[in-house]
Amino acid sequence: MADPRIEAAIDHWAPRYVEHGVPVGDFLDITREIDSWDDWCAAWTASGRRHEELADAALATGHRRSAALHYLTASVEYHFGKFLFCHDVDQMRATHELAVAAHRKAHPLATPPFERIEFPYGDHTLVGNLRVPDADGPVPIVLMIPGLDSAKEELTGMEHWFLDRGMATFSIDGPGQGEAEYDLPIETAYEKPASAAIDALVGRPELDLDRLGALGVSLGGYYVVRATAFEPRIKAMISLSGPFRINDTIEQTPPMTRLAFQVRTHSPDFDAARAHLETMDLTGVAERITQPSFIVTGANDRIVPADQTRRIAAAIQGPTEVHIIPDANHVATNKAYEYRPRMADWMADQLGA
Amino acid sequence: MADPRIEAAIDHWAPRYVEHGVPVGDFLDITREIDSWDDWCAAWTASGRRHEELADAALATGHRRSAALHYLTASVEYHFGKFLFCHDVDQMRATHELAVAAHRKAHPLATPPFERIEFPYGDHTLVGNLRVPDADGPVPIVLMIPGLDSAKEELTGMEHWFLDRGMATFSIDGPGQGEAEYDLPIETAYEKPASAAIDALVGRPELDLDRLGALGVSLGGYYVVRATAFEPRIKAMISLSGPFRINDTIEQTPPMTRLAFQVRTHSPDFDAARAHLETMDLTGVAERITQPSFIVTGANDRIVPADQTRRIAAAIQGPTEVHIIPDANHVATNKAYEYRPRMADWMADQLGA
Repeated sequence: MADPRIEAAIDHWAPRYVEHGVPVGDFLDITREIDSWDDWCAAWTASGRRHEELADAALATGHRRSAALHYLTASVEYHFGKFLFCHDVDQMRATHELAVAAHRKAHPLATPPFERIEFPYGDHTLVGNLRVPDADGPVPIVLMIPGLDSAKEELTGMEHWFLDRGMATFSIDGPGQGEAEYDLPIETAYEKPASAAIDALVGRPELDLDRLGALGVSLGGYYVVRATAFEPRIKAMISLSGPFRINDTIEQTPPMTRLAFQVRTHSPDFDAARAHLETMDLTGVAERITQPSFIVTGANDRIVPADQTRRIAAAIQGPTEVHIIPDANHVATNKAYEYRPRMADWMADQLGA
Repeated sequence: MADPRIEAAIDHWAPRYVEHGVPVGDFLDITREIDSWDDWCAAWTASGRRHEELADAALATGHRRSAALHYLTASVEYHFGKFLFCHDVDQMRATHELAVAAHRKAHPLATPPFERIEFPYGDHTLVGNLRVPDADGPVPIVLMIPGLDSAKEELTGMEHWFLDRGMATFSIDGPGQGEAEYDLPIETAYEKPASAAIDALVGRPELDLDRLGALGVSLGGYYVVRATAFEPRIKAMISLSGPFRINDTIEQTPPMTRLAFQVRTHSPDFDAARAHLETMDLTGVAERITQPSFIVTGANDRIVPADQTRRIAAAIQGPTEVHIIPDANHVATNKAYEYRPRMADWMADQLGA
């Protein structure tokens, strides 16, 4: 436990990991056992494999519910092994493939099940996972947008808030994210992939696209503002710890975060990443939003300073509910209870769920 | 964070707290903020009150699902403020009353709801909380038995495993436990309260008492052996980290645990507690069990050494599935995933759920 990057991990990541499905015992054991950041990905990969073994055993005896849980735990542990391991892209990618594969094994087993949807995006293909709660008629739906180091597999840990309240969820990997990050760099004009994702849902009788909301986390808290500003099909927005203009504060982010910006913008160095991100700026964009918005951040956010998120809230023209949560960190994961049930209730109210 | 009792808490309690509903951020914040065990109960009480405020706010706007969650979080935080605070019984009891009251506020709001059942036990009354999953016909049911420092409110964090698989749950406070601990000392012949609890369920059309299982945790892992040995209505048993003969190893338990034994046996000193517990011995008892049994403990259990639980498994005459989980602590809460889904699947298979 000598590596300061490991010590920082315990402080900042425990709530994020656990809130999204990592057993707290695994988090404590792994952060205690390893003493170099270089071992991070391998340790989580090994732990994920144990969960996958448990899943296989449950499935072999016909216990589908338990198998789904174990596959999803495996997937999110692989994901967190991978999420910031950008100094070793080969290892990162190998574990990422395990995360996607384990998640897919859960798709037919989970309640509700996941449907993997591959949809066109220019000359490329993007991927999202759709879940639809049991209901008689068409249901509202929430488009779920990850950030710099999250991906659709991590968002599974938030889907239940909406599913439990009668809303479908569609969690996507956009450019620079998850399955798309190797072929497509970060796209500052995120309304383009968001609109492609919504197009992919048109015509599904189980969904009511007139009642569509969108949620974005961290850098996704920026992306969702872009999407909502330019995509009138989005009727309500949740933006969590989003930056208004990333380059204002990017120098102060931790080294691993800066490296992730470099790698996921497909930049040869950090200066090139900064140049790529220069258009990641909501000036003149957030003002376009007239839809109802729910804005959250932690007052002590050290990744995206709270003032960045306050600027988003101040610029939006539609009605806003704003939570700047005291003593809370990035995405307020250490105080998730302060807003996650509330955000889901708010979205349900907006969409008539 | 100077008090060694606080440091021990982090190591041993984080998984137990979080697995049973405490947000990990609260656990980390509180263990970081306080530096004396004397502040433990007050810190959790204050945190619980915040969750109760959130519950009240959710309820006031008609968001019953969120209100239920917040009340249950409040309840389990109050509970863990109280659970081993035996050196200050007045403070312990005041916070305990908050735990019970917050839990009761969740009763009509939760899915499925809780029904509080008060049932006769000799000249006294005991209390249990019944939950029945939505189903067409009568469902199997699992009697849930707490231990030395747990109570029915903590067991709510395990009920979902069974409810999700179509089984009802009935979590009780027996003598020396929860609501009964002030009037009734620990009862080594726990088949008596267990049978009284089962009697209280007779005649309910939503339950199939011919498909009744029982689960006990920690000292409850002893109680459930007593109950199953003498109560033929119990058709399958789960025993988690139970002691075979408590006085064999009671001297090695942590000081707070020994004080809890003293207070909850209503003993003037520890020697009197030991004398009270002399009949807590499964010699000649475990052998009576012919029902199927599922036995679990952590190989590194420091409260009830694993050999104690191994003796239970070895003595039982019926079929057993035994999990001695490597690198796991008391009740294997740091590796809960290694057995909790499996134990629920096993019980569902035994009871035909």
